[in-house]
Amino acid sequence: MKKQLMEMLEARKEEMIQIRRYLHENPELSFKEEKTAQYILDFYKGKEVEIQSNVGNGHGIIVTIKGGKPGKTIGLRADFDALPIMEETGLPFKSKNEGVMHACGHDGHTAYLLVLADCLIQLKGEIPGTIKIIHQHAEEVPPGGAKSIVESGVLDDVDNIFGIHLLPMDPAGVVGYHSGFSMAGRSYFKLGIQGVGGHGSSPHLANDAIVAGSYFVTAVQTIISRRLNPFDMGVITIGSFDGKGTFNVIKDRVELEGDIRYMNLETKKIIEKEVRRIVSGIEAEFGVQCELTYTSDYPPLYNDPEVTAEVKASLEGANDPDIKQVLEYPMMSPSEDFAYYLEKIPGCFFYIGATPKGVEKPYYNHHPKFDIDEDALIVAAKSVGYVVCGYYGLE
Amino acid sequence: MKKQLMEMLEARKEEMIQIRRYLHENPELSFKEEKTAQYILDFYKGKEVEIQSNVGNGHGIIVTIKGGKPGKTIGLRADFDALPIMEETGLPFKSKNEGVMHACGHDGHTAYLLVLADCLIQLKGEIPGTIKIIHQHAEEVPPGGAKSIVESGVLDDVDNIFGIHLLPMDPAGVVGYHSGFSMAGRSYFKLGIQGVGGHGSSPHLANDAIVAGSYFVTAVQTIISRRLNPFDMGVITIGSFDGKGTFNVIKDRVELEGDIRYMNLETKKIIEKEVRRIVSGIEAEFGVQCELTYTSDYPPLYNDPEVTAEVKASLEGANDPDIKQVLEYPMMSPSEDFAYYLEKIPGCFFYIGATPKGVEKPYYNHHPKFDIDEDALIVAAKSVGYVVCGYYGLE
Amino acid sequence: MKKQLMEMLEARKEEMIQIRRYLHENPELSFKEEKTAQYILDFYKGKEVEIQSNVGNGHGIIVTIKGGKPGKTIGLRADFDALPIMEETGLPFKSKNEGVMHACGHDGHTAYLLVLADCLIQLKGEIPGTIKIIHQHAEEVPPGGAKSIVESGVLDDVDNIFGIHLLPMDPAGVVGYHSGFSMAGRSYFKLGIQGVGGHGSSPHLANDAIVAGSYFVTAVQTIISRRLNPFDMGVITIGSFDGKGTFNVIKDRVELEGDIRYMNLETKKIIEKEVRRIVSGIEAEFGVQCELTYTSDYPPLYNDPEVTAEVKASLEGANDPDIKQVLEYPMMSPSEDFAYYLEKIPGCFFYIGATPKGVEKPYYNHHPKFDIDEDALIVAAKSVGYVVCGYYGLE
Amino acid sequence: MKKQLMEMLEARKEEMIQIRRYLHENPELSFKEEKTAQYILDFYKGKEVEIQSNVGNGHGIIVTIKGGKPGKTIGLRADFDALPIMEETGLPFKSKNEGVMHACGHDGHTAYLLVLADCLIQLKGEIPGTIKIIHQHAEEVPPGGAKSIVESGVLDDVDNIFGIHLLPMDPAGVVGYHSGFSMAGRSYFKLGIQGVGGHGSSPHLANDAIVAGSYFVTAVQTIISRRLNPFDMGVITIGSFDGKGTFNVIKDRVELEGDIRYMNLETKKIIEKEVRRIVSGIEAEFGVQCELTYTSDYPPLYNDPEVTAEVKASLEGANDPDIKQVLEYPMMSPSEDFAYYLEKIPGCFFYIGATPKGVEKPYYNHHPKFDIDEDALIVAAKSVGYVVCGYYGLE
Repeated sequence: MKKQLMEMLEARKEEMIQIRRYLHENPELSFKEEKTAQYILDFYKGKEVEIQSNVGNGHGIIVTIKGGKPGKTIGLRADFDALPIMEETGLPFKSKNEGVMHACGHDGHTAYLLVLADCLIQLKGEIPGTIKIIHQHAEEVPPGGAKSIVESGVLDDVDNIFGIHLLPMDPAGVVGYHSGFSMAGRSYFKLGIQGVGGHGSSPHLANDAIVAGSYFVTAVQTIISRRLNPFDMGVITIGSFDGKGTFNVIKDRVELEGDIRYMNLETKKIIEKEVRRIVSGIEAEFGVQCELTYTSDYPPLYNDPEVTAEVKASLEGANDPDIKQVLEYPMMSPSEDFAYYLEKIPGCFFYIGATPKGVEKPYYNHHPKFDIDEDALIVAAKSVGYVVCGYYGLE
Repeated sequence: MKKQLMEMLEARKEEMIQIRRYLHENPELSFKEEKTAQYILDFYKGKEVEIQSNVGNGHGIIVTIKGGKPGKTIGLRADFDALPIMEETGLPFKSKNEGVMHACGHDGHTAYLLVLADCLIQLKGEIPGTIKIIHQHAEEVPPGGAKSIVESGVLDDVDNIFGIHLLPMDPAGVVGYHSGFSMAGRSYFKLGIQGVGGHGSSPHLANDAIVAGSYFVTAVQTIISRRLNPFDMGVITIGSFDGKGTFNVIKDRVELEGDIRYMNLETKKIIEKEVRRIVSGIEAEFGVQCELTYTSDYPPLYNDPEVTAEVKASLEGANDPDIKQVLEYPMMSPSEDFAYYLEKIPGCFFYIGATPKGVEKPYYNHHPKFDIDEDALIVAAKSVGYVVCGYYGLE
Repeated sequence: MKKQLMEMLEARKEEMIQIRRYLHENPELSFKEEKTAQYILDFYKGKEVEIQSNVGNGHGIIVTIKGGKPGKTIGLRADFDALPIMEETGLPFKSKNEGVMHACGHDGHTAYLLVLADCLIQLKGEIPGTIKIIHQHAEEVPPGGAKSIVESGVLDDVDNIFGIHLLPMDPAGVVGYHSGFSMAGRSYFKLGIQGVGGHGSSPHLANDAIVAGSYFVTAVQTIISRRLNPFDMGVITIGSFDGKGTFNVIKDRVELEGDIRYMNLETKKIIEKEVRRIVSGIEAEFGVQCELTYTSDYPPLYNDPEVTAEVKASLEGANDPDIKQVLEYPMMSPSEDFAYYLEKIPGCFFYIGATPKGVEKPYYNHHPKFDIDEDALIVAAKSVGYVVCGYYGLE
Repeated sequence: MKKQLMEMLEARKEEMIQIRRYLHENPELSFKEEKTAQYILDFYKGKEVEIQSNVGNGHGIIVTIKGGKPGKTIGLRADFDALPIMEETGLPFKSKNEGVMHACGHDGHTAYLLVLADCLIQLKGEIPGTIKIIHQHAEEVPPGGAKSIVESGVLDDVDNIFGIHLLPMDPAGVVGYHSGFSMAGRSYFKLGIQGVGGHGSSPHLANDAIVAGSYFVTAVQTIISRRLNPFDMGVITIGSFDGKGTFNVIKDRVELEGDIRYMNLETKKIIEKEVRRIVSGIEAEFGVQCELTYTSDYPPLYNDPEVTAEVKASLEGANDPDIKQVLEYPMMSPSEDFAYYLEKIPGCFFYIGATPKGVEKPYYNHHPKFDIDEDALIVAAKSVGYVVCGYYGLE
C-alpha cells in the first residue's frame, strides 16, 4: 500500500498547494476560525468517515477513519488558526483579512493533512486499525485547543499520536526529529507593584514603584544564574515594564509581564517558587504591595523515544527522492500545545524543512514576511504517510 | 504715604476678590493666556503708566510707574498662567474652561498686584523712584516666561525685585521668608535605551532593553547616596519607565524620563556629570545604545540675604492686624521661574499663608481641589505694599 | 577680671606648649590613659579645688572650682585620649608610644585647659558661681567617656557647658561656631548573611552569600536616595564587605559593617527602620539567614542657639589681637561625644583654627602627619576665657 | 587473551588494595609528588618496558609497552597527586602527611593501573600495538600535568586514549559513560576594583569600591540569564569578595575572584567577552580602575562518540559478574585535565562506581571524609582491560 499512497500523494501535490493558498488568503484568529472549520467540514462531505465538530473549547474537528482490519488507533494532527500580524509578503494570495496572517505555516499543515486524510480514506480497507485526523483550532493562544480536545475524551482510545511543523531553517526535503524533551514548556506571570505616588522632588513622601520594579528585574536574573541546575534549560524574560508616567511625578504603580521557558518540571517548579520568593522579598524590602498572577501554560513537549525511533526508521527507510535528509534537531525553546497530547499519548512531533527557494536568510515563523517553499507540503504528506505505513507494517 | 496706601488697599479688598474670581473662572494654559493678558491690559487702560505688551516669549506685560522723584527702580511680579488640571473644587466660580484650572494661586497673585499697582499709580507722586509691575505669563511650563523677560532687557534698569506665592500650609495672616537658596533648581533628562528585540525564549539572540533600563535605575541611586555632599540637597526621580511590551517578546527599547532637584550649582553639576557617566557605563556594560537629552531647567531660587533682611524688617515693623506672623520658612523642593530674575537682580520671593478657613488638611498647589482663603489677597497686597514703602523709606 | 585673666594666660603661653608637647610625646589609647590621668591629677596637687577621679567608665577627672560668690555652675571640657595611629610627623617630641598618637589635638585641648583652670583657680574669688573642669577620657572609642560622666550624676548641677576642638582648616586666630545641630550623630550595624556553601560549578545546590550581600548593598542606596527628606543629611557607608573565599567554592557567609550619619532623630529613625526592612527583604528574597546588630552611637551634637549667641557675642566683643576672626562654620559630618553633654545641658562646642604655619594643605585630624600651630593654644585658652567672663558678666 | 587477563587481575585484587592503601597513607600535593613518583618507578624496575620520568612540568611518568605485533598505539592514564585537605576518615591507613589527603581517588586510579600495566606487560606478546601507561602528576592544580605532557610530544604517536575516575555516587559494579562533551571547561578571573578611600561620613570625597563591586556582582548575573543560549551550560561563581575593612572608612579597594564553567567553546567565549564588557562598564559607570586577570583553565572534556561507543560495547559485552551495570551518565560540571589529552587524541574518560559498602549518602570527592569501596579497583582494572581487549580485537 505504501507505494500506492505515495503515488496518490504525488498526483495531488498541486491540490495541496491550492488548498494552502486558499487558507493563506483567508486566515482567521485563534478561537474564531469559523470559516476555516467550515471549509474543512466541506472537504470531508460525502466521504466515508465519522466526523465530530466543535470539539473541545472551539472549532476542533475529529475525522475518524476506520480501517478494514482491527488494530491500533493513531492520531494525526494539524492546527489551523492564524496570527494577529499584518502580512508583508506581497504574495499574490496574501491575506485578505487585514491584520491576520498565516505566519506560522498552519495553512500548510492543514493543506497536506486534508489530502493525506483523503488518500487514507480511499485506502482504508488495507489499514489494520483506526486513524483519527485531528484538525485543531487555536494553537497560538493559551490555553490553546489541544488541552480541551484531550480533556473532551475523544482521543481516549488513541494509542499513539503524530504531528509536524513546517520550519524555514532547512530546505524542503529535510525532515528533523528530536527524541525526549524537545520543545520548551511555558509559564506566564503578571506582576503589579503598587507604591505611593508623589511629587518628584519629595521622594520621602512617596514610595517609588519604578525603583521597586527595577530592583525586581535585577533580582530575577539570579533565578537563572544561581538557582537552576546549569545543565537545565530555563529562561525568564520580562517582556513588559509598563511604567510610563510624568517625569516630575513619582510613579505609584508599575506592571510587569514575564515569560518563562523550561524543559522539565523540576525547572518549572523552581522558577515559580523563586519568582514568588523574590516578589515577597521586594514587598518586604521596599514596602510596596505586589499582585502576582502566575499561570502555567503549554507543558514541555516530550517525544516518546521508542515512537521517535520508529518515526526515524520509517523516514530513513523511505528511499524517496522527496525526503532527502533525516536530521537530529536540537531541543528548541518555542512552545507548542501538541505537548498536551503527548502528556497523555506517546507520540512524536517532528519538523519539515521549508526554506523558500533562493532565500539564504529566511524569515522565521511569526514574521510578517514569513513564507514557505510549497514543495514542503508533499514532503510533509509523504513523511507522515511513511510514518503511518511504518506504524502499521504496511509495505 | 504708608498709612494711606494701606487704607486704599483695605477699601478695595472686595475688588481683589472679584478679580481673582473672574480669573479663576477663566483660566488659560501657559503661553496661551490671550484673554487674561487682554483683561490685564484693559485694567490699565487710561492710567498714567507706560505699558509694554507681548514681552518675552509670550503674553508678558510690563507696566512702568514713574515716581514723582528720582530714585531706584524695583520690580513687582505676579504670574498669570493656569494648569492643565480638571477642577474638582465645586466653587461657584469654578473654571469654565474645562480641563484648565488656576490650581496654583496665580489668579490671586494677579488680583492683588493689579489693585496694588493701581494704588501705587495714584500715589506715584510721592514715590522716589520707578516701579515696574511685571505681569508674567507661563510660569508653569519650562522654559517659562521669566527667562525671556530678563533676556528682553526690559528689566535691565531694575535694582531689586520682589514676588510672592500663595501657599496653603499656613493660614491667612502668616507671611514666610527664607534667606539665601530657598527653592530647588531643576534639570530634566530623557533617556532612550536601544537594545535588540527578539523572541522571549531566546535571550542570547536579543539584547534586553528592560534589563539594561532596570540596572540603570538601580545605579542612579548611588548618585544621591554616594556622590553628593550629604549636607547638600539633591533628588533624582525617574518618573517614567516606558517599557510596555508583549510578555513573550524581548523589548528592544525603553524610554526613561528623569526629574532632578538641587539647591546649588555644584550639586547640579555633579548630578549631570554622574548621570552622563552612568549612561555611558550602561552602554559599555550592556552593549545598548543610549540617547540622552539632558536639559537645565529653572535654577535654584536665591533670595538676596540683605534684601530679605529688609523685607523681614518691613513686615515685622508693619504692626498691621492683617499681618499676624512673620515666619522663617525652610528651603523647599519645588521650583519657580522667579529664580531667573534673582539670578540677575537681587531680590526676595516670599510666601503668603492661605489655608482655606475651617480646613485642617488643605489640598496643596496643583491638586484639583486646591483652594485659598481669599483673605490672603489683602495680606499679599499689604505685605508687598509694606516692602515697597520700607524700600523707599516712605513712612 | 577679664583683662587680668588674659594677661595671666599670655604669660603662660609657653607653659601650655610644653604641656602639649609632653602629652604629645606620651599618648595613651582610649580607656587606657592611666599616666595621662595621673599627670593631670599631679598638676592640680595642692591647689584649692575639689577633685574627683575615675569618674564614669574610665579615667575621667572632675575639678570643681568654687567661686567666691554664689551663682551658676558651668562645665569646661577637654578630652585627653589618643589614637591607634603610627605617627609620621617627624616632630622632635613625637610619640614615644609606638603605634599611638595624639592625632586629633586632644593634647592641645588638655594643655590649654589645665593652664586656664589654674588661672581661674587663682581668680576664683571674683567668680560668681562654680566652674567644673571636665578632663574626659576616651572620646575616640564608643561608647566614649562623656555618656558615662553624664550618667554618673557629677554634672547634674551644671547649668551650661562649653568645649572646643582644634581644627586645621583655618589658621590660628580664627574661631568658628555653628548654632543648632552642628555635628553628625552616628549609628553602626553589623550584618551577617548566612547562605549555604557549595562547589563553584553547582549553584543550585548552594545559596550564594556574596550574591545576597551584593544585592543588599545596591538596595541600601535607596534609603538615602528615596527615603530621606532631601533637605536632611544622611549617610550610610558599608565600610566592610568581608567575603574572602576560594574562587571555586560558593561562599556560605559574608559579614558587612555599616556606618550611619545623620543630623536629626527623624533621619536616624528612618534609616534604622529602612535598614531593618531591607535586611528582612533580602532574607525573603534570597532565602538567606541574616543576623543584624544595630547600635546607636554618639548623638548629633546640638549647640543651644541662645548659648551659642552668647559665645559669639563674647568672642566678637573680645577685641583681642589673638582672636582675629569669628566665623560661622557649616554643619560637619564627623561625630563627637560632647553631644552627650549637650543632650542634657545647654551649651556650645566650638572650633579653634590651627593650620600649621606655612602649610597650605594641612593634614586633617586622624592623619599620621596631623599637626597644629601651637599658637592655637593661647587662642583656645583666651576664647574659653572670654566665654567664661562673658557668661558671668565679668569685665 | 581476554580471559587470561581477567584471571590475572582477579588474582591480584588484594595487591591493588595494598598499593592503594600505601598511596593513601603517603599522599603528596600536586607538583610535589616525589616519593609517589619514585614508588611508581620502583614498581616497574626490572620490567621489560621503556620508562620516561619527569615528563612534562613535573613528575610525570610514561611507561611504554611494546606489543608483540605491530598496530595502533593507545594511552591509559591515571593521575597520582593528592589534595591539601585534613583527612577525617579515621581509616587505619589514613594519611600520615598531615593536611594532605587522597580525597579524590587518585590513589585508587594509580593502584589499579599499576597492576593492570604489569599484567599487560606479561601478556604483551599477544598485543598487536603499543600501550603507553601515563602516570600523571598534578591533576588538581591548574595548569595541571596533562597539558604539559601533551606538549612534550611523548604522546604524539598515540591513536586513542582512555582514563577513568572513581565516583562515589554509584556502587562498585556500575560503570558510567557519556558521549560528546561530558565534563565542564573552566576559566578563572581575578578582578581588582580600585576606588578612593575616605571617611565614612564623606562619600563625596571618596569613591566606594564596595559599592562598585556589589553592582558588578549583580550585573554579572545577566551573563548567564540573558547572554547564553538557554540550552547551553554556563556558570559564573564569584567565590571571593575580599572587601574587609573598617566600618567607618570608605573602602578604597576590593578584590573579587570568579570561577567559570561551560561545556562548549562558544559559551566560553561569550562569557569572557561579557565579563570584560561588564568590567569596562563598571569602570565607566563608577569611575573606578579595574584590573582584570582572566585565564583559561581546563577545557571541556570531550569524549569521542565513536570511541565511546566502542567502550560501551566492550563493557556491555563483558559478561563479567564484577561489571554489573553500564549506565549512561549525564554531563557533569566538575573539570578534569584529561580534557587536554582529548583535545588532541580521540578517546574516552569514563566513571567507576565506588560507594563505600553500607553507606547511603556517600561523601563526595574532595570531602575530608571521602572514601571508596575498594572493590571498585578490580572493576576499574577489568573495565579498562575489556576496553583494551575490545580495542585490539583480542578475544
